[in-house]
Parts: sequence; C-alpha cells; structure tokens
Amino acid sequence: MRYGLGIDLGGTFVKLASFTEDGVLLDKWQIPTVTENAGKQILPDIAASVEAYFREKGWKREDIIGIGMGVPGAVDKNGIVDQCDNLGWPTQNVRETFSRMTGLPVLVCNDANAAALGESWKGGGSGFESMVLVTLGTGVGGGIILNGKPLLGINGSAGEIGHMVIRKDEPIYCSCGKRGCAEQYCSATGIVRLTKAQLEGTSQESVLRKMQDFTCKDVFDAAEEGDVIAVQTLEEVYDCLGQLLANICCVVNPQAIVLGGGVSKAGSPLLEGAKWYFERYVYHAASAQFALAQLGNDAGVYGAFKLVMDLPA
Amino acid sequence: MRYGLGIDLGGTFVKLASFTEDGVLLDKWQIPTVTENAGKQILPDIAASVEAYFREKGWKREDIIGIGMGVPGAVDKNGIVDQCDNLGWPTQNVRETFSRMTGLPVLVCNDANAAALGESWKGGGSGFESMVLVTLGTGVGGGIILNGKPLLGINGSAGEIGHMVIRKDEPIYCSCGKRGCAEQYCSATGIVRLTKAQLEGTSQESVLRKMQDFTCKDVFDAAEEGDVIAVQTLEEVYDCLGQLLANICCVVNPQAIVLGGGVSKAGSPLLEGAKWYFERYVYHAASAQFALAQLGNDAGVYGAFKLVMDLPA
Repeated sequence: MRYGLGIDLGGTFVKLASFTEDGVLLDKWQIPTVTENAGKQILPDIAASVEAYFREKGWKREDIIGIGMGVPGAVDKNGIVDQCDNLGWPTQNVRETFSRMTGLPVLVCNDANAAALGESWKGGGSGFESMVLVTLGTGVGGGIILNGKPLLGINGSAGEIGHMVIRKDEPIYCSCGKRGCAEQYCSATGIVRLTKAQLEGTSQESVLRKMQDFTCKDVFDAAEEGDVIAVQTLEEVYDCLGQLLANICCVVNPQAIVLGGGVSKAGSPLLEGAKWYFERYVYHAASAQFALAQLGNDAGVYGAFKLVMDLPA
Repeated sequence: MRYGLGIDLGGTFVKLASFTEDGVLLDKWQIPTVTENAGKQILPDIAASVEAYFREKGWKREDIIGIGMGVPGAVDKNGIVDQCDNLGWPTQNVRETFSRMTGLPVLVCNDANAAALGESWKGGGSGFESMVLVTLGTGVGGGIILNGKPLLGINGSAGEIGHMVIRKDEPIYCSCGKRGCAEQYCSATGIVRLTKAQLEGTSQESVLRKMQDFTCKDVFDAAEEGDVIAVQTLEEVYDCLGQLLANICCVVNPQAIVLGGGVSKAGSPLLEGAKWYFERYVYHAASAQFALAQLGNDAGVYGAFKLVMDLPA
C-alpha cells in the first residue's frame, strides 16, 4: 500500500490530510500559517510537519506517491504561484521548492480548483461528467471540472466567476475595483450589505434591526421566520445567483452546478431559490443539475490529494 | 499523399472543401441544401457530390483520411445531432449514417464549434493556446477551443454565449424566450433594433432616418460619418459586447477572443470599441487578447476538416 498527502494552504491555517493510494482519508491535522516575513516560513513549516508525520507512521519516501497542494492564488501549469497577498508571498515556483524540500513529487493548484476537484471526486459533484463548484463564502469563487480535471485558463483565472458583472449600473465598488460583480450580491459579505441597504431604505419591522451586528446566517434565520426584510433581500440574492449560474452554463454547459462555501450551509432554501431564478435565466439547451457541496472544509485536501493520486507509479 | 474533406452544412447551402493531409485547401464548392421532406435528401445529396468529386480527382477510398462535418445544431460526442429545425431534421446519428453512405470515417460537430476550430487552426486564433470565437451574425454564437479541441459541454451547448443575460431589465423578448440576452444587442439584428429604438426615442437628425430600411452595415457607415444616432447606438453595442466578452473570460480565461461573423466586417472600430468596454468589465487576472476572424465563410470547412486531420492513419 502506498500513500499520499493533500494540503490546503489557507491564510490562517494549513490543513493537511493523508490518504491511501485508493483515496481513503486516514488522518487530518492542521498547523498555523505564519505569514510574517513574506511568508518565508510557510513551506519549511509544512515540510517539518509532513516529515514528523511520516516518521510517526514509519513511512519511507518510496511509500509516498506524492503531495498535492491547493494555494490561495493563481497557479500556472508549471507550479508557479502568482504573488499571493494572503500569504505575503512574492511570485515563486512552489512545486519545485516544496518538492526539493520534501524529496517528493509535488503538484500545486489554486485552492478553489482543488476544492472543486475534491467535490467532483468525492462530494456533491461525484457522478457528474462535468461540474462547476460555486463557492459562496466571504467572496464568491469557483472551480470548473471537465473530464475529471480542473480548467485552469491561460493565467490560472478560469472559474473566477465571482467577478462576472451582472448589474452594470451598481454604484458601489467591488473589492476588485469594478462594479456589479456577482460577489457583491451572492457572498456572505454581499448578503449582509444588501440586507443593511434594505433596512436603511424602509422603516419595515425586522428582527435584524435590533441586532448590533448581524451575519449572513442571521439573515437566513430571519427569512425562515418570515422576516420581510430578510425574505426580500434573499429574493434579490437568489435572482443574482440564478443569473450568474445561468450565465456560466451558457459558456461551459456543465452537467452539474455544486454550491459550496459558508453561505451554502443555508441548504435547501438557497438551492431552491437559486434554481427558481436559474430556470428563468438559463438557455434551454444549457441547463444543469444542482447539488450542495458535501465535503465542507475537507474539499481542498481531497482535491489536492486527487492531483497526485493519478501520478504514474 | 492522402486527402480529406471539410463540410459546412448550412440551412441554404452545403459548403464543401478538399484538403491535403497536411492541411492545404485544394478545392471549394457548394450545393443547395434541400430542406423539404424533413431534409431527407440532404445527406444523399452531399454523398453524391462527394462521390462525383472523388471520381473526378481519381481518388480511391484508401486515399481519404475522412470527412468532417459542421451542422447547425447540438451534436453529442457520438455524432447524434439534436432535432434541427433549420434543416427539417429529426434527431439522428449523422456520423453513422453519413459514414455508411460514403464508406469513410466521418466526424460531426456543431457549426459554431467547427468555425471556432477553423479560426483557431488557420485564422485569427492561430498561435493562441486557447480562444473563444464570438460570431456576431444574425444571432450571436460562439465556440471555445481549449488545447486545440472544441469544448462541447454536456448537451453540446457550450459556447452558446449569445444567450448570456446581461440586461436583466430588458422588456423585449429574445428569440430564445428570455429577456436581456447579449444577442439582443450585439447581433446584426440587435444593432438594427437598437438603432430604430434610438431613432424613435429622439428627433435627432440622422441619415438613417431617410432610409426605408437600413442594415447593420448602414449603421457602422453612418457612425463613420459622425452620425450621432449611429455613434450612440454603437456605444451601447460595444458596452454590451465588452460586458459579454469580460463575463466569458472570468469563466474560461482564454488567451484570445476572436470576433467573427458579418458584424465583424466593421473591423477595427468594432474591435477597439468592444475592447474599451471589455477593459472596464474584465477581472484583471482574466484579460485576453483580441483579434478579428480571418477565414470568413471558410472557417467552417477548415474546422470540419481539422476534426478528421488528426485521425490516426
């Protein structure tokens, strides 16, 4: 039996997981991401943790297929990671560097693509020939899986669907510097922003009005209770999300759309709401099935391992 | 030396072209498309024309690599063409049928994908690793080429970008039954429609006002002469086109966008106009180079032949 690792490198924690060669998850652990000093300590820290784990398990180099890693930035096909502000990193070849540190084959991809690959392999997208994972979190990200592989794009920016412009007359700027991006309406941040705008725009009663600060989850909870402001805001969110998803489908015509990220914990109201608007915006011959992501925070380590699982022995 | 054929099956004419095995176009000809009687005569007519051409050239079956064909409808990976109203066809396996008729290997794909493959191989998209052909004609179509192959999508509807919704508040319906599709603004039909709306909305002088009926080309010509109505309309067209192209780029992040179809004959004003708005809508890490299509009506036969060119000997 041989083994491999999947690593999900985030701005706060590095998640690590070990897998058997046939894809069974064995162990999961995490270490803090030390972003100080241009993130110079990040890869050595991971290498040390990996080394310690291998020693503990009694695994030798020849027992290991390789290490897959998802990173929060654009990655080209050679493993060069673009300047990554989340980690403090300048542009560098992470594949080469980490492979030299560990003496093992390393494959690197963008974290959204890794999560998409994980969901496609073992999660909400399994069984579909092609799928788009739409991650509704602080921002809106995505990953497109065609024939079992992530679509990277020429600059590693395929699947940056949060920045599709769907409301060209939006007066407020998105973090990317444009206006009217899907992320401004469908992310957790966007949902709170829209709710605040609704509250300010009317004198309608709302449980949210009494809260000092409310979260996206509070908005979903209030809507569940019939709160008019929350219900109206979420209708607008579903409308925007439906349009975004339909627009993705007329470009790549995937078999399935999988909704993930923190916002997707809202579950079936979100799924049903988005689907209702989606049907109104989608080109009839490019429709898709809908599913919820299933792997939660583990999607990234699953997908990262899947990258190396298919390496030749 | 072996040879192959590329066929572009349209609703009025079937265009045929012969190529050497290394991709040099030898002859081009066309025959009418007889759509009567559920289009039953179409494939036998093509087969007879092909047979006559082979006889004239003295080519035997073993001299022929195969025949590629682009058809105006959705095609699955087995060569089954969805019900095709333009041709009067019910759903049928065109690859199998035409291969039996001719005794030759046949590959079939959607005509927009064939044109995109042609432009990618020998036209405006040559030299780019990935590209999207955006065909601005009576409607707006498209084809996406990744690693030298058309992206088909699960129902053969990838690249149906004309039906991306970019103006959700549009009151007028698109031919597809939705409202606010890019095709309603960026097609030749859409440009004439927008111009008429501009003319009706103001009393502004315009050379177009005096014309009984004007075409999309008249609008570009008038704008060239400084006609205010035409200039204003085209600004709106470029705005819509820029948004459409930017939205495609954040999904697939292609290296190049190639503009084709009748409207693209407007040339550099169109290219520059679309690019200006594109830069305002595109996600910074997903930008693309712009080019004009170069093969005109031959793009389809080039791409159709390219399908079979790579068949094993």
